[in-house]
Amino acid sequence: MHADQLLNNTMVSWMEAEKGPVSDIVVSSRIRLARNLSRFPFPHLLTSENGRECLKQIKEAWEKSENGELATLELITLDELNPLQRQILVEKHLISPLHAASSDDYRGVLVNGDGSLAIMINEEDHIRIQCLLPGLQVGECYSKAQAVDDELEKNLNFAFDETRGYLTSCPTNVGTGMRASVMLHLPAVAISGLANRIFQNISQFGMTVRGLYGEGSEVIGNFFQLSNQVTLGQSEEDIVTHLTSVATQIVEQERVMRTRLESEMKYQLEDRVGRAFGILTNARIITSSEAIALLSDLRLGVDIGMISGIKTSALNELVVGMSPAHLQQKAGQEMDGYNRDLVRAQVIQETLRGEDDTGELTTDEQ
Amino acid sequence: MHADQLLNNTMVSWMEAEKGPVSDIVVSSRIRLARNLSRFPFPHLLTSENGRECLKQIKEAWEKSENGELATLELITLDELNPLQRQILVEKHLISPLHAASSDDYRGVLVNGDGSLAIMINEEDHIRIQCLLPGLQVGECYSKAQAVDDELEKNLNFAFDETRGYLTSCPTNVGTGMRASVMLHLPAVAISGLANRIFQNISQFGMTVRGLYGEGSEVIGNFFQLSNQVTLGQSEEDIVTHLTSVATQIVEQERVMRTRLESEMKYQLEDRVGRAFGILTNARIITSSEAIALLSDLRLGVDIGMISGIKTSALNELVVGMSPAHLQQKAGQEMDGYNRDLVRAQVIQETLRGEDDTGELTTDEQ
Repeated sequence: MHADQLLNNTMVSWMEAEKGPVSDIVVSSRIRLARNLSRFPFPHLLTSENGRECLKQIKEAWEKSENGELATLELITLDELNPLQRQILVEKHLISPLHAASSDDYRGVLVNGDGSLAIMINEEDHIRIQCLLPGLQVGECYSKAQAVDDELEKNLNFAFDETRGYLTSCPTNVGTGMRASVMLHLPAVAISGLANRIFQNISQFGMTVRGLYGEGSEVIGNFFQLSNQVTLGQSEEDIVTHLTSVATQIVEQERVMRTRLESEMKYQLEDRVGRAFGILTNARIITSSEAIALLSDLRLGVDIGMISGIKTSALNELVVGMSPAHLQQKAGQEMDGYNRDLVRAQVIQETLRGEDDTGELTTDEQ
Repeated sequence: MHADQLLNNTMVSWMEAEKGPVSDIVVSSRIRLARNLSRFPFPHLLTSENGRECLKQIKEAWEKSENGELATLELITLDELNPLQRQILVEKHLISPLHAASSDDYRGVLVNGDGSLAIMINEEDHIRIQCLLPGLQVGECYSKAQAVDDELEKNLNFAFDETRGYLTSCPTNVGTGMRASVMLHLPAVAISGLANRIFQNISQFGMTVRGLYGEGSEVIGNFFQLSNQVTLGQSEEDIVTHLTSVATQIVEQERVMRTRLESEMKYQLEDRVGRAFGILTNARIITSSEAIALLSDLRLGVDIGMISGIKTSALNELVVGMSPAHLQQKAGQEMDGYNRDLVRAQVIQETLRGEDDTGELTTDEQ
């Protein structure tokens, strides 16, 4: 049931900007806890046989759990999904690209209906608990992830070292096993040329900046993922507080720059936002990277009140909905890049013009 | 009266595409006859005193004339107009940039109310009769200009040499003193990369190609002005027939390329036209050269029926109406380039969105 919902609808919890604080600038907050079972080798060394056993133990622990959150989850194993479906979960940020590359029956994800809680099983670690919420809610994500962690730990023996903390497949996660991150939309900081300076400062505070799809992804559309780099020697609470504090400072800088742009470059800003809207609502062929860059400009217009009638949540949904796997799912067929660019333009037009999206999607069959 | 009308309204005869044949490709046709009075030095050697005498004789000949066309003209001398007003006549193609540079009281223009007939007085030659009509009407232009020429010659003694024909200030005009031209809009030929090849061939036939504002102007927006280069050794009728024939062949090539683009690059064409429309109707700041390039794309969409609700004549009017002098006249103030770009974007939006253009034009006064 959750699988159907998550595969066929685009909207998930983190896109609901109206439900998150500061969501004109902070798209989403995320906590990820990495845990491993002490009796099993790390996932990359698992055989099918002990992989299945590992999954079985995790599943049993989940089923035994009385925690309300855990009870809302459903298990999807990767062999139940085709590559396109797995990619849809990646585009929604519910599983990692690494996880999507596998179709093993002992790997999977425990996920709730709105995607706010997802537990990857046998990805890089045996268990990766992810809580993902709209706006600036790092503390809330941590509380939720921690409750799930506590509940699972009642019935599982996690690999833990008194000195080093939780043991993980990759040494950069040893300690808390925690990665806390926020996705920031910083167009005014970027337009003003301040992004590099800000992010150089940030690295001195044990933080790192990545693109829209996490590690190894480029920054596009002025979306910056800010996360903690250190997992050892800091408590979970310190990491949450620290990240929230740095994010709040950056949000303030973005606000200052937005106000400055509005007063000093009013017409240039209107021009930029207007052109983005004009191209997005009239192009017939559009690549993903061009569309994200233009949607970033449009979002700025929406968030500062220059454009009305479009919701931030609709733009969050659109960025994901126009991604390759979502487009192909919607069109009901595999498509090459050119046909995706055609269908993407149609999906964007329908969304932004507020038209019914019941029409047929036209691909170039000639 | 004519001056008021020509200065305050943008539309003149040649813009009325609906009234000219082949006007989806041929914007306008023009005949210009250069004549000089035998008793006076060429204009660049005129003193104020004999300049005034020269004007007086031309004026008397005009007033005596019984030709219907001549009776519809009114005389405007250049000292009656400020530089902005003279530039407005240049932008409408009614006088030349050279003429607009002068404010001498012995130079001027005899012009009718719709701008289809204009006689420059004491520009490069004493008399330059211009007939300018929409679409492919070179023959019609010539008939009209010739009738005016015949009528004036009854009361004026034109400098004429039995061997060489009409004498002119610049030797390239000696003979017929005639320049015949057509303004062609050739986006499909240009997109297909055929323009250079076509125009190289044309120069072998005694033709030359220029930009939107004639000699010395660059080709922008895929508008090409095709004219005869030779004025000596060919009859007026030959020149007219020859130009019409070459123009007709180019029109055919443009039609072939439009059909090919529509069938082979349908979506790319829709994308190009759509983006042009989207930017033009949403930009807040736009330069003249960007706007002309986009209006060229939009015009193609209108002319092949891809865009409805916009007339070709409205686009002809807009190209002139968004030119610097017209913009400043409309705004009622002198404006720098940046403010012109702001007001241009507003004028384009009003025209293409079909809104009332009664609103205030906003410039950046900060």
